[in-house]
Amino acid sequence: MLASQSKDFSKWYNQVVLDAGLAEYSSIKGCMVIKPYGYAIWENMKNILDGMIKDLGVDNVYFPLFIPESFLKKEAEHVEGFDPEVAWVTQGGGKELGERLALRPTSETVMYDTFSKWIQSHRDLPLKVNQWANIIRWEKRTRLFLRTLEFLWQEGHTVHADERGAEEMTNSALAMYEDFIKNHLAIHTIPGRKSDAETFAGADYTLSVESLMLDGKGLQMGTSHNLGQNFAKSFDIKFLDEKEEQKYAWQTSWGVSTRMVGALIMAHGDDKGLVLPPRIAPYQVVVVPIWKDNKEKKNLEKYISSIERGLSEKGIKFFVDWREQQTPGWKFNDWELKGAPLRLEIGPNEVEEKKVTFVLRDDLKKKPLALDKFLEDAVSILSEMQKRLLKRSEEFVKDNTRVAESYSDLKKIISEYSGFVEAFWCGDEKCEAEIKEETKATIRNIPFGSGGKGKCVKCGKKSGHKVLFAKAY
Amino acid sequence: MLASQSKDFSKWYNQVVLDAGLAEYSSIKGCMVIKPYGYAIWENMKNILDGMIKDLGVDNVYFPLFIPESFLKKEAEHVEGFDPEVAWVTQGGGKELGERLALRPTSETVMYDTFSKWIQSHRDLPLKVNQWANIIRWEKRTRLFLRTLEFLWQEGHTVHADERGAEEMTNSALAMYEDFIKNHLAIHTIPGRKSDAETFAGADYTLSVESLMLDGKGLQMGTSHNLGQNFAKSFDIKFLDEKEEQKYAWQTSWGVSTRMVGALIMAHGDDKGLVLPPRIAPYQVVVVPIWKDNKEKKNLEKYISSIERGLSEKGIKFFVDWREQQTPGWKFNDWELKGAPLRLEIGPNEVEEKKVTFVLRDDLKKKPLALDKFLEDAVSILSEMQKRLLKRSEEFVKDNTRVAESYSDLKKIISEYSGFVEAFWCGDEKCEAEIKEETKATIRNIPFGSGGKGKCVKCGKKSGHKVLFAKAY
Repeated sequence: MLASQSKDFSKWYNQVVLDAGLAEYSSIKGCMVIKPYGYAIWENMKNILDGMIKDLGVDNVYFPLFIPESFLKKEAEHVEGFDPEVAWVTQGGGKELGERLALRPTSETVMYDTFSKWIQSHRDLPLKVNQWANIIRWEKRTRLFLRTLEFLWQEGHTVHADERGAEEMTNSALAMYEDFIKNHLAIHTIPGRKSDAETFAGADYTLSVESLMLDGKGLQMGTSHNLGQNFAKSFDIKFLDEKEEQKYAWQTSWGVSTRMVGALIMAHGDDKGLVLPPRIAPYQVVVVPIWKDNKEKKNLEKYISSIERGLSEKGIKFFVDWREQQTPGWKFNDWELKGAPLRLEIGPNEVEEKKVTFVLRDDLKKKPLALDKFLEDAVSILSEMQKRLLKRSEEFVKDNTRVAESYSDLKKIISEYSGFVEAFWCGDEKCEAEIKEETKATIRNIPFGSGGKGKCVKCGKKSGHKVLFAKAY
Repeated sequence: MLASQSKDFSKWYNQVVLDAGLAEYSSIKGCMVIKPYGYAIWENMKNILDGMIKDLGVDNVYFPLFIPESFLKKEAEHVEGFDPEVAWVTQGGGKELGERLALRPTSETVMYDTFSKWIQSHRDLPLKVNQWANIIRWEKRTRLFLRTLEFLWQEGHTVHADERGAEEMTNSALAMYEDFIKNHLAIHTIPGRKSDAETFAGADYTLSVESLMLDGKGLQMGTSHNLGQNFAKSFDIKFLDEKEEQKYAWQTSWGVSTRMVGALIMAHGDDKGLVLPPRIAPYQVVVVPIWKDNKEKKNLEKYISSIERGLSEKGIKFFVDWREQQTPGWKFNDWELKGAPLRLEIGPNEVEEKKVTFVLRDDLKKKPLALDKFLEDAVSILSEMQKRLLKRSEEFVKDNTRVAESYSDLKKIISEYSGFVEAFWCGDEKCEAEIKEETKATIRNIPFGSGGKGKCVKCGKKSGHKVLFAKAY
């Protein structure tokens, strides 16, 4: 039995991850094994996003895992940000290495060393590449999918001839993430700009899409960094412009990771387990056959193979659970735990009456329908569910976003409700740090278009924008 | 200009890899950057093979990069085989680690530690998983795609309740590789069994598919290992069988890597560069527009967009090279270097006469054809080319496989022709080692079905099978 989501969210999360067969810790401390069902979800995310990245004119590449210590040190802020989390290779091929090699905590430095050789002229720009890779960050406190020593991600890196090109790319990448997370993961996010304290080490500024998990805690789902000319200057990425003048290039980088699998669980799950949006589910339909004897089973096989044909024709991903060891009831629970969007329960009755009994994961009500009609409607039934999940997510974020007019308001809301809190902030890192210290809430981002005039919730100084506070993962 | 393939194969290979934009060395010694065009080829291989792996009922997973030293040491032969090539992480998160962590040179040990927890009963078997991952082997002499400190691969790992299950899986995986390499890469391979000296460290036996590059050197393209119960005993992978008796499991592992990109270059290339089989080419058709002035360009644009529509409808992957800086002639050379299977040259003449001029990469002859007819035939033109490349590969291997009746024969053939040499071998490692020492040729494999009776080419003892010798990559 799963822990109750409302009573112990953290325990519930770990149980879902383990019991639904998504992932588990390996014997190597802080490292995760991604199991078949969990990997299938990540693979769906990856395939869809890969297409969207290519649509932005970005090509896939692969750069080395190793980063010489000297590279990491070239950009001062960058090394300061990542140094504490680096794992170092010091021996290889039976020898001590002359220089320690970092395992990539992110690939700016190793890529930009090469970019400086690729880029000579404005004709070489823009350069837009992406890689799917494993990333190493030596974290102290780990949690499956959310924070492990090794994780999988995609990192896009682009180089532009002018500031505007980099700016537009930073925005496009964020818009792509928002679109993907909304339309495929059915999760509502707030796009905005990070405060300086939360900006990527080495970037001019960082944009993010932030969402709210069902326990009211924030989760950063994707980031897009405008690197300005910081790395270009450290790595000497220069080009001759149309007037034959040497200029430093402008750069961006942006990424999302296996963390999104964790977000998916925490944004849609319930006391029975995972709830997967149809567009990202490994199986959109799971068929559970119900039979007592061999004769019934034979009739079922024939009937179900006609269902299989019908689902295939509609391009629906399905699985028929013919396992012999488990009862139908056990299977219902198992597929609810695994979050299959639609379950078909097919027994002798259904065969005889040429119908199906179907159960949607978000309402769990048994509904009968003629087989023909079901096959005709299956795609729209699933897409309606997809829409419902997104709507629910939008409403959840809306219902859990509160406005704080004063600092006592802010403290009260954070401690009583958690969720997002909108409040004016002066822009001073000191106020930000004090609020974090006292409430554990951080500035998630400064949402786009959050104008207005008010006073900083902490110090009372004038402020031109509301920001979003939350306790966060 | 490229080096001549027949005069300096090695120089030619490196130039093709660099000039066609496939890959280059990074600043990290022995490590490769896979560039967009090279990665697109690997991605095509990966996508096709991933489907074939799934068709064998194998699920994708992801296991940690790190392997504790103690794991690696559990299987004695295994550690002996890999220890010299291991890179070690000794520091992480600002601290010295208690135990060194190897970066996976292959994942048997880290996976099987976890498998021993997953497997309790015969009902948990067979277990069949695969991962796409980066692999680290600290090689002394490196060559792009063929041997670098880091490379990309897929590794399948399966566990079975009986010996026969493992045997069948070992064969199925090899058959899959042979099929993929034949029907997609258009390369003829010889399937067979490795000699004991060339068997994977820790396996009962290793099967391989071996091919011949255009310089007459052998290249191992994929391997499939029957691990027997060796790792099961070291990692305590046991299960209760149907009679409630505890048994050790039987295992296999199998893999192919980015090395296949190197093989593709060396099996099909010519003095003009790469020759890509249509089924694996990033672009199957490249359109080079030819225009003098804006009016001509405008007419071209309209005509070419109708070609684009036609190619899209046929599911053909194409690219229109509208670059302004380069002449058509430069582009012809560039796409020959990059191995595009079919080039369309479209100028004012073609527009006026509603025709195309097309050039196939394997014969480089200009052929005119009415546009309608071309679009109708394009798929079959490409598939005919695919077949021709495979046939050429089959003939090349056949023509370069010679029989040695005596040891002097063997030595003469190896030094005069290189290529494959069939000869009887007694099975003794001493003969194998002496032949290698004296001729630089190794036993590539013992081809399936290579029966017969004869005498070992080296020692004259009785032998029941011919084996395949070659100098190899």
